[in-house]
Amino acid sequence: MAIENTNIHPLDPATSVELALAVELVRKQYQVPIHFKCGGLEEPPKAVLRKYLTAEHAGQTPTPINRWIFMMYYIKQTPRLFEVIVDVTDRKIVHQKELPRTLHAPVDRIELNEAAQVALADPAVKAELERLQLGDNVVVVDPWDYGKDDENEQRRLTQIFFYTRNPKNNDPASNHYAFPLDFMAVVDLIEMKLVKVCHLPLGGEEITSKHTGPRKLGNPEEPEYDHRLQSKPARTTLKPLQVLQPEGASFKLTGRLIEWEKWRFRVGFNWREGMILHDVWFDNRPVFHRLSLAEMFVPYGDPRDPLHRKGAFDIGNVGAGITANDLSLGCDCLGLIAYLGGHVVNAHGDVVAKNNAICIHEVDAGIQWKHTNHRTGQASIVRKRQLQLQTILTVANYEYIFYWIFDQSGELEFETRATGILSTTPIDPANKDKVPFATRVADGVLAPYHQHIFNLRIDPSIDGDDNTVSYVDSLPMPADNKLNPYGTGYITKETPITESGTFQTDPYKNRVFKISNPGKINPVSYSPVAYKLVPIASQVLLAADDSWHNRRAHFTDAPVWVTKYKDRELFPAGDYTNQSSGAEGIRDWVARKDNVENTDVVLWHTYTFTHNPRPEDFPIMPAESVRIALKPVGFFNYNPTMDVPPSNQEFNKSTAYDFTLQVGADGVLDSKMNSLSVNGSAEHATGSCCKK
Amino acid sequence: MAIENTNIHPLDPATSVELALAVELVRKQYQVPIHFKCGGLEEPPKAVLRKYLTAEHAGQTPTPINRWIFMMYYIKQTPRLFEVIVDVTDRKIVHQKELPRTLHAPVDRIELNEAAQVALADPAVKAELERLQLGDNVVVVDPWDYGKDDENEQRRLTQIFFYTRNPKNNDPASNHYAFPLDFMAVVDLIEMKLVKVCHLPLGGEEITSKHTGPRKLGNPEEPEYDHRLQSKPARTTLKPLQVLQPEGASFKLTGRLIEWEKWRFRVGFNWREGMILHDVWFDNRPVFHRLSLAEMFVPYGDPRDPLHRKGAFDIGNVGAGITANDLSLGCDCLGLIAYLGGHVVNAHGDVVAKNNAICIHEVDAGIQWKHTNHRTGQASIVRKRQLQLQTILTVANYEYIFYWIFDQSGELEFETRATGILSTTPIDPANKDKVPFATRVADGVLAPYHQHIFNLRIDPSIDGDDNTVSYVDSLPMPADNKLNPYGTGYITKETPITESGTFQTDPYKNRVFKISNPGKINPVSYSPVAYKLVPIASQVLLAADDSWHNRRAHFTDAPVWVTKYKDRELFPAGDYTNQSSGAEGIRDWVARKDNVENTDVVLWHTYTFTHNPRPEDFPIMPAESVRIALKPVGFFNYNPTMDVPPSNQEFNKSTAYDFTLQVGADGVLDSKMNSLSVNGSAEHATGSCCKK
Repeated sequence: MAIENTNIHPLDPATSVELALAVELVRKQYQVPIHFKCGGLEEPPKAVLRKYLTAEHAGQTPTPINRWIFMMYYIKQTPRLFEVIVDVTDRKIVHQKELPRTLHAPVDRIELNEAAQVALADPAVKAELERLQLGDNVVVVDPWDYGKDDENEQRRLTQIFFYTRNPKNNDPASNHYAFPLDFMAVVDLIEMKLVKVCHLPLGGEEITSKHTGPRKLGNPEEPEYDHRLQSKPARTTLKPLQVLQPEGASFKLTGRLIEWEKWRFRVGFNWREGMILHDVWFDNRPVFHRLSLAEMFVPYGDPRDPLHRKGAFDIGNVGAGITANDLSLGCDCLGLIAYLGGHVVNAHGDVVAKNNAICIHEVDAGIQWKHTNHRTGQASIVRKRQLQLQTILTVANYEYIFYWIFDQSGELEFETRATGILSTTPIDPANKDKVPFATRVADGVLAPYHQHIFNLRIDPSIDGDDNTVSYVDSLPMPADNKLNPYGTGYITKETPITESGTFQTDPYKNRVFKISNPGKINPVSYSPVAYKLVPIASQVLLAADDSWHNRRAHFTDAPVWVTKYKDRELFPAGDYTNQSSGAEGIRDWVARKDNVENTDVVLWHTYTFTHNPRPEDFPIMPAESVRIALKPVGFFNYNPTMDVPPSNQEFNKSTAYDFTLQVGADGVLDSKMNSLSVNGSAEHATGSCCKK
Repeated sequence: MAIENTNIHPLDPATSVELALAVELVRKQYQVPIHFKCGGLEEPPKAVLRKYLTAEHAGQTPTPINRWIFMMYYIKQTPRLFEVIVDVTDRKIVHQKELPRTLHAPVDRIELNEAAQVALADPAVKAELERLQLGDNVVVVDPWDYGKDDENEQRRLTQIFFYTRNPKNNDPASNHYAFPLDFMAVVDLIEMKLVKVCHLPLGGEEITSKHTGPRKLGNPEEPEYDHRLQSKPARTTLKPLQVLQPEGASFKLTGRLIEWEKWRFRVGFNWREGMILHDVWFDNRPVFHRLSLAEMFVPYGDPRDPLHRKGAFDIGNVGAGITANDLSLGCDCLGLIAYLGGHVVNAHGDVVAKNNAICIHEVDAGIQWKHTNHRTGQASIVRKRQLQLQTILTVANYEYIFYWIFDQSGELEFETRATGILSTTPIDPANKDKVPFATRVADGVLAPYHQHIFNLRIDPSIDGDDNTVSYVDSLPMPADNKLNPYGTGYITKETPITESGTFQTDPYKNRVFKISNPGKINPVSYSPVAYKLVPIASQVLLAADDSWHNRRAHFTDAPVWVTKYKDRELFPAGDYTNQSSGAEGIRDWVARKDNVENTDVVLWHTYTFTHNPRPEDFPIMPAESVRIALKPVGFFNYNPTMDVPPSNQEFNKSTAYDFTLQVGADGVLDSKMNSLSVNGSAEHATGSCCKK
């Protein structure tokens, strides 16, 4: 197999050929089977990459960089875990290390499915199912990350919850989450055997549970989300809405390089972070070096054994690239769509294509700016076109949708949507008490409260890598007879962050985090050129400081973190999150107390959906969404969208609603009432436009 | 003139005939000219209206309600201000009152234009213009609300700022805000004569100013926002993007009644609030009785005399209906558009049509929900269709865009966008200091910091008018060896609001405000049916407690207010905000300490844009936006969007990006590299769908 990498950019994702070669080189060291866990591009160290990118942007031919692949693997059916970096250009292993038993690689669906079969075949589980007298009802198995509750537990484990299909339809697509069974099991993933069976609590304060006899299953009339199983046909009230771009897209895709409306960036992809943005420029100036969703933690608030352990790292334990959906035309995106993807490696060492992991399209987001001069009556208006990159992850029961949204104004937003299905647990239907840590979403079904805690990693390059982060507050001016005689004054106060650490959001001070380049002064404002992070003010982790949740999920107890850039510091809860003990992560990095002024810094933003389920979130959850904004603040000398063409009908081709069949509209009313001829003028600006 | 109101709904806006009749009935009382200030529907008292609506919803024929028109007017060129209510059905005045001299009606463009001419003709202003030696440069006049800084000042006044056109083009559409002159004037609007001329401060700490000689005007190379005046042609990179609904709209408009996807509501309109929503139902159940933007205050942070007075009530001082733009097809909205409007009365007593004040259209807002069952590989997905009602106000230099956004999920959002032009003031270009309360946005031009403080009035009717507001916090469970042994538990705590008052937002507790109907229990969750306000956590007024800003703008010092419903309590800074002294408003209403449990309550949400201008906001500002959400929480028994048809290409008709001319895409790369045949499977859910 020959690798010719002349056409490969150092930030292009690992190709199928590169991954296959890496698998081959790892495998041939061993006589025994290998259980592969993941494989993807090991990005070049920043110093090396920066040299390449600088040459590239200068129009020179950069010296190619050898391509490296990172992988994790086990010796199959052993706890022996390795990480490896393979130089696929030179066909050699450049790093290989056996890891301590305290570290565990991500789970994979192949081993989880095997564990599910092991559980179902085990006499202890069979006995529980017999106790429940389920008859013909098919049992549905839901393996979950094990979590952590014991310092000394080093076995690789999964915990398995059990449900049944809706007895009414017994269909593979039925919403089994409405029919939770009252026990769960733990399976050892190395031995592939059952460790134990536990009964689930069925009441609010039950601590240890031991059930006897069958339980009434849930209500078979519970609604189904799968349209095929719904008792009524879908509504017919909705008329088609189509987005057309008759002259094609305004963006240009060349390999992984996207150029659109002054933006220029590369789209990366790997098994862990999924979609990544690299080398983001606007109007021929660098803005961000690398942007990615770095980690996610989903702790549950149900304190009862064994549910207390539920807390999943949905990036590090599984992989956003691995769980990325294969997006379909006319289904996941609307309009003129381009797709990008990548490749991952499965447990068998097979290379798997993720062709449509990212969809790319333009949207019209309303009005970008408008003004009507009341002196002339003339309106000036431009619309707000945006470019969206969307990826969707399925992590067991939940779905996450992430968007990077590029705006013509130089603004960049990251949107997070949460949808999918609640992870449920049974409750005794005879118990009518409300439970303080969960919502009853169906008969005999509880949906425990939980948080989705995200961390966005922002590696800026505001006109270069040497940047300073500061926070800017808006504060009243002190009372002062001379300078503030009427008490109306207010000012901003900018506090530069000099040392790595954690920082609080504060909407009551209108706090924003400014990333500036102290070496470059804006000639209009006399301040350094900058972008600002408009953070989301949200809740941090609710679990106690000494809980395993907090110990493991380093990034979850503060909203903003600033570190000095260091190669391979990408994952704030550590490289190995599954069953982790919290031994490594961003708390260690900020504790170095590095100087972070006018140097290569990284800003990390933690934000949270505290999700206390509603009945409306069941059987499937309408998406919750939130957006983080990165906006220029004195990066430009003036509004960069002024040259966007004016909005007009010739370009936009809108259609007027057909009133002819309607009665009683205002005009009609007036005509029925011997309407006056109306020709006065308020002489206020009326803002009519587009009369070109 | 005969009024037949058989077809008129009591919530329909005042018609042209009704307004003309009211003008006629007022005018014929007097021998002297009348200066009309406003005229619009006086909505029926709630008890009367509720009876009508109850009959209407029961399918009965309600007893018609007499139509009333509210107006304000002056005896022309006097300070004598009256408010009047005219019963246009019975052609009689039912209320008329002369108001104390402390109260002032809104400004109108007709009088402001007259004041501008008065100022320009005054010798004192002429002397200032001569001092400045402007040559052929045309002076542009910018009258502003006067504000308040003196308890004893009862004259009706306006303050006028002066600019010039850009000398380079001397065009009426030039961005004169880049060329502020160094003085201003005050004009008495009753006497219609100049009161005084003041010099504007030109440095950071200057308190009283006296300038001599000319000043260098700004840089004629400052960019223009009007496309016609721009030095370069508009960009040509943007390809058309069109929204088509080939089978028509999914909404139905009957008079002012809109029916769309289980929603049913009426769209009101008046001179003051502009767009109003009435009698909002979802799925045949009442949700909100009345929703409107009730007030807005824009205080400036520049403490220097005379700029300290700048603080405008952009609703009460002018009128959101009066300043509503006449929206144009293909310009302000995209897609299939319906328009609604209304009528207002101008200073002369003429009725003015505002035909296209509101545009109504559907949008596709991405994905509503998705889940892929990893056991079957099947994805279920529906898109998120929304109905948007948009209105745009031009208030002197600024534009505001407001949207009500209806979602199929029963969610209702209110979006606010701020755009338009910064109100600027001069600074000595030789002074290179940064000013702590303003940003330099052009050569010799300061844009002072300011806040836009909005108040949304929410009159709920959650399955009826008897509702309770509570706030719900998400809190850690206390440490407890028995109930929370691992420290992972968390709970919600609901605090009912029993007495009218003010309440804080708290994103760090994930605080939401729940509006519930204690009389109706959700059979799934066992909690009362409810909607929640997801508030915006933002800054309150920054001006001092004893400032005029704070005294006048009652609603600006707390984010959430709860009052017991009372007829005619619609405007939280009082009915008469112009030059107001703060004598009346929501602080008085909450001080009643009314019982607000299980009764007819009103919830008021104050939210703020603290706008510290950026150079990017000049010469025109890219819209800033924010959304408030009202979401069902146990109002329904399950997700109300389950019956939305699945998303598929047959319906959506998306288009694939044409890659044929592109090189280097991942697939192409792979083929250049002797790509492997890739056929492994990660066996994770891939979420491909729409394969019907």
